Amino acid sequence: MCTAISDNTNGFFFGRTLDLERSYGERVILTPRRSSLDFLHAAPTREHAAILGIGIVFDGKPLYFDAINESGLAVAALNFPRSAVYRDVLPHALNLASFEVIPYILASCNSLASAKELLKEVNITKESVSASLPASPLHWIIADKSGAIVLEATADGARIFDDPYGVLANEPPFPFHLSNVSSFSALSSAPPENKLSPDVDIMPHSLGAGAFGLPGDFSSPSRFVRAVFMKSHTDVTTEKISSVSRFFHIMSTLSVPKGSIKTDDGASVCTVYTACGDPEDMTYYFTTYASRGLRAITPTADELCGDRILSTSIEASEHIEKVRFS
Amino acid sequence: MCTAISDNTNGFFFGRTLDLERSYGERVILTPRRSSLDFLHAAPTREHAAILGIGIVFDGKPLYFDAINESGLAVAALNFPRSAVYRDVLPHALNLASFEVIPYILASCNSLASAKELLKEVNITKESVSASLPASPLHWIIADKSGAIVLEATADGARIFDDPYGVLANEPPFPFHLSNVSSFSALSSAPPENKLSPDVDIMPHSLGAGAFGLPGDFSSPSRFVRAVFMKSHTDVTTEKISSVSRFFHIMSTLSVPKGSIKTDDGASVCTVYTACGDPEDMTYYFTTYASRGLRAITPTADELCGDRILSTSIEASEHIEKVRFS
Amino acid sequence: MCTAISDNTNGFFFGRTLDLERSYGERVILTPRRSSLDFLHAAPTREHAAILGIGIVFDGKPLYFDAINESGLAVAALNFPRSAVYRDVLPHALNLASFEVIPYILASCNSLASAKELLKEVNITKESVSASLPASPLHWIIADKSGAIVLEATADGARIFDDPYGVLANEPPFPFHLSNVSSFSALSSAPPENKLSPDVDIMPHSLGAGAFGLPGDFSSPSRFVRAVFMKSHTDVTTEKISSVSRFFHIMSTLSVPKGSIKTDDGASVCTVYTACGDPEDMTYYFTTYASRGLRAITPTADELCGDRILSTSIEASEHIEKVRFS
Amino acid sequence: MCTAISDNTNGFFFGRTLDLERSYGERVILTPRRSSLDFLHAAPTREHAAILGIGIVFDGKPLYFDAINESGLAVAALNFPRSAVYRDVLPHALNLASFEVIPYILASCNSLASAKELLKEVNITKESVSASLPASPLHWIIADKSGAIVLEATADGARIFDDPYGVLANEPPFPFHLSNVSSFSALSSAPPENKLSPDVDIMPHSLGAGAFGLPGDFSSPSRFVRAVFMKSHTDVTTEKISSVSRFFHIMSTLSVPKGSIKTDDGASVCTVYTACGDPEDMTYYFTTYASRGLRAITPTADELCGDRILSTSIEASEHIEKVRFS
Repeated sequence: MCTAISDNTNGFFFGRTLDLERSYGERVILTPRRSSLDFLHAAPTREHAAILGIGIVFDGKPLYFDAINESGLAVAALNFPRSAVYRDVLPHALNLASFEVIPYILASCNSLASAKELLKEVNITKESVSASLPASPLHWIIADKSGAIVLEATADGARIFDDPYGVLANEPPFPFHLSNVSSFSALSSAPPENKLSPDVDIMPHSLGAGAFGLPGDFSSPSRFVRAVFMKSHTDVTTEKISSVSRFFHIMSTLSVPKGSIKTDDGASVCTVYTACGDPEDMTYYFTTYASRGLRAITPTADELCGDRILSTSIEASEHIEKVRFS
Repeated sequence: MCTAISDNTNGFFFGRTLDLERSYGERVILTPRRSSLDFLHAAPTREHAAILGIGIVFDGKPLYFDAINESGLAVAALNFPRSAVYRDVLPHALNLASFEVIPYILASCNSLASAKELLKEVNITKESVSASLPASPLHWIIADKSGAIVLEATADGARIFDDPYGVLANEPPFPFHLSNVSSFSALSSAPPENKLSPDVDIMPHSLGAGAFGLPGDFSSPSRFVRAVFMKSHTDVTTEKISSVSRFFHIMSTLSVPKGSIKTDDGASVCTVYTACGDPEDMTYYFTTYASRGLRAITPTADELCGDRILSTSIEASEHIEKVRFS
Repeated sequence: MCTAISDNTNGFFFGRTLDLERSYGERVILTPRRSSLDFLHAAPTREHAAILGIGIVFDGKPLYFDAINESGLAVAALNFPRSAVYRDVLPHALNLASFEVIPYILASCNSLASAKELLKEVNITKESVSASLPASPLHWIIADKSGAIVLEATADGARIFDDPYGVLANEPPFPFHLSNVSSFSALSSAPPENKLSPDVDIMPHSLGAGAFGLPGDFSSPSRFVRAVFMKSHTDVTTEKISSVSRFFHIMSTLSVPKGSIKTDDGASVCTVYTACGDPEDMTYYFTTYASRGLRAITPTADELCGDRILSTSIEASEHIEKVRFS
Repeated sequence: MCTAISDNTNGFFFGRTLDLERSYGERVILTPRRSSLDFLHAAPTREHAAILGIGIVFDGKPLYFDAINESGLAVAALNFPRSAVYRDVLPHALNLASFEVIPYILASCNSLASAKELLKEVNITKESVSASLPASPLHWIIADKSGAIVLEATADGARIFDDPYGVLANEPPFPFHLSNVSSFSALSSAPPENKLSPDVDIMPHSLGAGAFGLPGDFSSPSRFVRAVFMKSHTDVTTEKISSVSRFFHIMSTLSVPKGSIKTDDGASVCTVYTACGDPEDMTYYFTTYASRGLRAITPTADELCGDRILSTSIEASEHIEKVRFS
């Protein structure tokens, strides 16, 4: 349960919500340029663009949920529980375990075009990072300022789809969402025209009625459609701070108040964190469920060219700024 | 374009969004106990419970958009542009100009029951606060921890409705919303049962599918239904800070990213501010569109018993907390 | 559970569906010009325009569900179970028991204008036609080729509403439906324009996608909206037989297959009959659930000017025309 | 634009609507047992089960739109304009031109199981029946009393899908519909439970409210969902005549009043005909837009074992049965 957005309307911002019934101790993680990366089957990378994102550190290894690199490329992994099918190692393929997809792409590619080329022969393999941490069923959105693609490994094998909306949610597979969106093509932020009964003087109830029919629930198809609408129907700004603000305002419409989704066991889901990466400034912005104020991390030049993984917890309690009468 | 919520599931929190294409220089305003209040037709009040809320100060007068008092009563005024009808002064009635409704009720009543009694004979009159500031077409939600009512002055005269949902939005008049909600009674945060075709093993796309059909647009009826759903389907907490957090998370699902509503003239609407009053602590929490971190104001004991109106602007720019690797 | 339509786009056709879990032995009933009509409180009428419609005959009395008269006026009574409030006799009012409304209006008025005038002072009284047949909770649509009105007696008293759509269904009261329709103003039979995401080349799934969002269930508000859409978005024809065909095709979209509505007790509702009156030819067209072929009755000149009520059952079994290879 | 239904809840009935902006001179066509059938690539069949259905006769050849055979197998072809991809002849495949699919399956198979086996190697080829009649882009539903499958030839090649709903409409490809239906799993003909706000006593507007959210438009995904609902939520009967009646009542909810769908050129679409085949009695029931009474054709024993194709036009004008007062 997550929604990812790639926003290249003015500059490039990329991020996601993570919706879960628990937190995993998420951290902002920096993999600096000289921190070498090993892979189960693929060749290791010694020097690479620095990688900044959010995930967990397991056994010294960065397990990214979403990240950007210094070249302006970004990847997020989203839950894909019913359709993800990982396979055995294939000869002549680029064999990547699911947890290697983000670091491998971000360490190997400097653009969406190069990622597309690289992934032509990809095979997502079954291995988990450890016996205690089974492989998560995932699919991925990969984007830079030129556009976005989706990578899915299903019973049909690994496939790549162009994603003209720059949006990803969860099940069903991406082609469903691409098709489903088209049902909502008439929705607009502008007041509706009366086409229902032109002889009657119909007044909309209020402003905003041109989007009547937009789904408001948190199922995956509904979040996908809502993200598409909000991306297209919010004012684009030129200032960076406004662009980041816009990103988080869009994300708010996709964020899950705790309990408004229940699992089969009755556990309450919420949006654990919301993140937005800005590769231009190599900055990661984020909020958590318990702490709605914006936070940001920008590694120093020294940190970026280091050889050791750095991380810090995103956990925080709500900060309330006390105001006084002037 | 606004949504108000009265939340008495655990404690009492009351607040609203204000959705407009511009800001009016809103301020947090305290009317202390000994600041006397004059009214056009009703008797002035010399001493009264202190009133804390948001609005504008015009000519030294507090024009509240929403406020609470020390007795635990709260009122918010919401836009009601098509149906509000204000009348000439009536004999034997409690004649209140629209801009007097909030201060008069909060200065005169210490409970919802007393407000209901008082408003039995109310007549909303036409006067504006000044020639340059025409009377806004409004309706009101009035609440305390026992419940909520709605006050509307339409062509049918002034009427009061019990509001079992503790929610108010804009047009059409309240009875429509009360009736409209019932179409959505089957929605739930829990996974749906398959009643469509019990012989087929239907799996929902994802968690959250039990609320499929919940409206996601920003028209007034859709915001009303969404507010009802979110109020009922979010986890109630006992800690005050979590209750405030819950309030703002619910409000986020009702908040308008700038441009996702356009006026007839093409201007972009956004949620200018979101506020939540807590009469128990006599504290007002708020965020603005440009500043998403929580702020709060709690008048001092001295301020509460003063005789002069105090206020402070809610305007602020986005505060971003810079984080470093530890 | 019923839907009524007044169609004056070309000529004047008026009719309804009757949706119930049982049949009452409905009959086509003619009240000829010289059949005098007595009323509990209102003056009897000796000579009047002939009245033709469907209902039941009880104790020699015609209890019409829907009917037309020779002057081109038409009335239908629809179920209004929660909101109908009938009162005691009022002085200075036109006191009509609910079962008298149709015959009194059709015997007294020759146009919608005269009916509106007459009903200004109406009071719907509580009496039932007999102890064994309690008064049904009803509201009425009254129409001629100039337009339509709705008559409702609720806790607010008897009221008349202009009905610009020429449609009536059941609960809630008419003002709700009038307001609710406006949410659907953007729906059209034409292909939708892409306003959702103009940069993406979105193709609708199929023709008909411009009406995506039209409700398809059989609740009363959904049938009302669907009737409005179908009336406005079907081709008007000049030939009488095509106009009648169009009427029944519209009604098919509002008709209930047996079991697709269940009562609280689990009984299956269906559209017992569908009727369409044509006052110009003084003809009543109808179909029943078990007999989908069109039937019609046109009283003779002699029958129209008689003094005795005539009737005939509408019950029939399905007629299947056997075709052979030529 | 068409909807097909296979109904095996009690007996086996199979049929469809054909929704177009024009008629093609459709005829009921019988291909008797000894009428040999030739195919472009596949082996001809000399003797076979008789085939009865609707289509056009071109150059002496039956071009079926939908048909049944004496063994209880049924096939319908539905418009699939965007996704159908026909290919060149493939070696080692069962090469069938699109217009040959129905006659070949019905002449070669006596059950759904045998059809599934046969179609494993199918390749749909590009040829048209003549230069003047280009190949229509189609997909097919194939059914008998044991179940239903869908055959689609797309850019991914020819594929077969199990169809647990026994329903087919048009675009997008079948997997979309299968997935899309699951969003509507909570819909029911029974009154809804209040899960929205259990503390408030919410009454539904009317019976039928448990299906609120069912799509009412004529786009292909909406007709698919509506067909699934109506099939599951209508009373199954034991008498044949009631089963046929039920079939046509379900089809009425999917039928298009003329003009409620417009093409890109503004032409008005309607449901040209509705058909229902009953292989047990080797009878074809049908209605047309202009003639709503049920008609049926049952070939004689002699006709069934003939060697020449027989046909008769389904065109007819509305038959209105004149009723008189008894």
